[in-house]
Amino acid sequence: MTMSSEIVDINRYMTELGQRARAASRRLAAASTGDKNAALLAIAQDLEEQREQLMAENQRDLEAGRAKGLDAALLDRLELTPGRIDSMIEGIQQIISLSDPIGEIFDMKYRPTGIQVGRMRVPLGVVGIIYESRPNVTADAAALCLKSGNATVLRGGSEAFHSNQAIAASIQRGLEQSGLPADCVQVVATTDRAAVGAMITMPEAIDVIIPRGGKGLIERISKDARVPVIKHLDGICHVYIDDQADNVKAFDIAINAKTQRYGTCNTMETLLVAEAIAEDILPLLGAAFSEHEVELRGCPCCCEILEGCIPATDEDWDTEYLGPVLSIRVVKNMDEAIDHINRHSSGHTESIVTENYTRARRFLSEVDSSSVMVNASTRFADGFEYGLGAEIGISTDKFHARGPVGLEGLTSVKFIVLGDGHIRT
Amino acid sequence: MTMSSEIVDINRYMTELGQRARAASRRLAAASTGDKNAALLAIAQDLEEQREQLMAENQRDLEAGRAKGLDAALLDRLELTPGRIDSMIEGIQQIISLSDPIGEIFDMKYRPTGIQVGRMRVPLGVVGIIYESRPNVTADAAALCLKSGNATVLRGGSEAFHSNQAIAASIQRGLEQSGLPADCVQVVATTDRAAVGAMITMPEAIDVIIPRGGKGLIERISKDARVPVIKHLDGICHVYIDDQADNVKAFDIAINAKTQRYGTCNTMETLLVAEAIAEDILPLLGAAFSEHEVELRGCPCCCEILEGCIPATDEDWDTEYLGPVLSIRVVKNMDEAIDHINRHSSGHTESIVTENYTRARRFLSEVDSSSVMVNASTRFADGFEYGLGAEIGISTDKFHARGPVGLEGLTSVKFIVLGDGHIRT
Repeated sequence: MTMSSEIVDINRYMTELGQRARAASRRLAAASTGDKNAALLAIAQDLEEQREQLMAENQRDLEAGRAKGLDAALLDRLELTPGRIDSMIEGIQQIISLSDPIGEIFDMKYRPTGIQVGRMRVPLGVVGIIYESRPNVTADAAALCLKSGNATVLRGGSEAFHSNQAIAASIQRGLEQSGLPADCVQVVATTDRAAVGAMITMPEAIDVIIPRGGKGLIERISKDARVPVIKHLDGICHVYIDDQADNVKAFDIAINAKTQRYGTCNTMETLLVAEAIAEDILPLLGAAFSEHEVELRGCPCCCEILEGCIPATDEDWDTEYLGPVLSIRVVKNMDEAIDHINRHSSGHTESIVTENYTRARRFLSEVDSSSVMVNASTRFADGFEYGLGAEIGISTDKFHARGPVGLEGLTSVKFIVLGDGHIRT
Repeated sequence: MTMSSEIVDINRYMTELGQRARAASRRLAAASTGDKNAALLAIAQDLEEQREQLMAENQRDLEAGRAKGLDAALLDRLELTPGRIDSMIEGIQQIISLSDPIGEIFDMKYRPTGIQVGRMRVPLGVVGIIYESRPNVTADAAALCLKSGNATVLRGGSEAFHSNQAIAASIQRGLEQSGLPADCVQVVATTDRAAVGAMITMPEAIDVIIPRGGKGLIERISKDARVPVIKHLDGICHVYIDDQADNVKAFDIAINAKTQRYGTCNTMETLLVAEAIAEDILPLLGAAFSEHEVELRGCPCCCEILEGCIPATDEDWDTEYLGPVLSIRVVKNMDEAIDHINRHSSGHTESIVTENYTRARRFLSEVDSSSVMVNASTRFADGFEYGLGAEIGISTDKFHARGPVGLEGLTSVKFIVLGDGHIRT
């Protein structure tokens, strides 16, 4: 295992690593589904066999982290418990069971000239993943990229260095055992920050960067990248309860969207309620949220109806709480709700609760977010729930992939043309 | 019409223009197919009525160009002849007849939880087009973006300034007449180069940049852009004649791919011929190319077979001639052909001529270009021939759109979820 201190010339190291990734990506693009699944299986088995070694290396990171005074939350994300190793291995097995997107041919149509034109799904090439403390991302991301025929360059957080290197070693043994190049998955073997700078500015070697981590990391990378970035920024998700909502559905969805889990990006952060029903439904919701110990911050109208509701500041409407806090605003009608959403949403997920056909249809069309829902909890917005299998992130961008990004989001297409000696006249 | 000299603060001007484009894009995204078609029709009619004015403004550009000593080819591209105005108007009418991609709902499926998940096609938002001397791009690009629900910011070449402004005025009158905001299409009213720098670094206002022009322009823009770029670089297209090719198909396709038009990006620049049939087919092809006065530059083996063939240099294999010149290389087999292609192709279009099923299938899979063909001329690689209608360019990139980019390439998708009070458990 090459250690950080041994790498003198970072740019040269990254250039060579990039060249190896590019070469491996060509081999991997032509690999059969069987070969890719065999490699994934070998990786899962190696991780299973290396459990003790993984935990020992993880222990080195945890000790170094404690010595450095990392906070409890970060140490928790860093830890590889037996359960987390189980999940990592199960995740790979699930990816084996997904169908291979590569080589899919679709839209084949005859043209008036007689040629037959359609498209074939192909890998993107080399995917760079830049992530923070969770070492399980190393296995999850590598497996998704491998199945979609992409070589991967992974750069994890420095505090997880030994854990990531140990996982990478398992991945590379699995690849070698199955006959695929070990360079299909490379983990950057240095904690030097210059490696990130190099990764995001090598379009000749890396086709797309996927940053996984906090907003700060993603913004920094997007700002300096010279390759496309699949961005997952924050999730300021809204539920709008229309005055023609079914009360039971409205109640269930609002409570579920906020309280089923607090720390996820598809959790509701702002509830919008139509004026005409606010006095009926807000007291019920207020009582239920109190039971869940959710702090409520409301507009003046909401505070009048709900005792114990704190006045919301301007900042509240633009905040992803990721915790038991909810902002509530009473709006005149759906138009005011859509205006509020288009001004304050992060473009992740919004839901309307209504029985009105025309409003449901308009909300679906006019709200510009990666997921738009009718009568469903925002908590459904993820790759598993949508049937994509695992996801590598949720894109809040519009270019290339949008919403949960599964295997298909890691692919491109090419046109294919079948002729019989056809020439253009 | 605001003139270049009147704009003092370019950054402020571009910021305001960008804000107006963003605001207009929201209105345009919600416009019905009927409204968009009505606007396109009004634009076509206005251009028809303004023919004389258009030609007068074009005359100003031509005179200035002649005074500046522009070369004949550039002056030709700059000129708006009555025929070119006809084509511009016909182009808009064709775009009216294309079906509207926006709002298309597809892949709706029930999930085990009971929610129904699918996708809806939506506009990208604001498209920035940066182009060189041809003023017809102003109308073509604006019409494609309008139909796909995107606002446009156009920045044409300084030598076509008055022509572009005149076309822009027609577009804006057409938009206003149909009730859509005139800001849906804005042409930058300054020749200051700082405007380009501003356009490519305003992600808050512009979602994607499409440069139309020479390789130099596209590379410059890609290097400095802070928004995604749909790139159309050069077309170094290959035809490989396999030793199991049908001779008639091989002959017809090779001649057509090179000589049907010389200056297009889908013209063959390099012919690869399998060793086993080189002595049979090359003399026939050589004679035909001589008749077309195509200069041949070959590998040593080719030069031995073909009298009058000039030895090719290393540079030839990487050159887009855009003229009556062809490089020819004799290869051992398809593997060597694919190796050559993957090393020298620009990723635009490649074709194999063969009757062998397995080789045809392998070529389609293993050649990594935006169009890959079997027994068809590379000249078919364009949006009209593929049935996309008009195209805004041919992307040689893999991210987002690849190959000819028509209306669909100017769109994104969002997930939509229909429930009936569904919550996540």
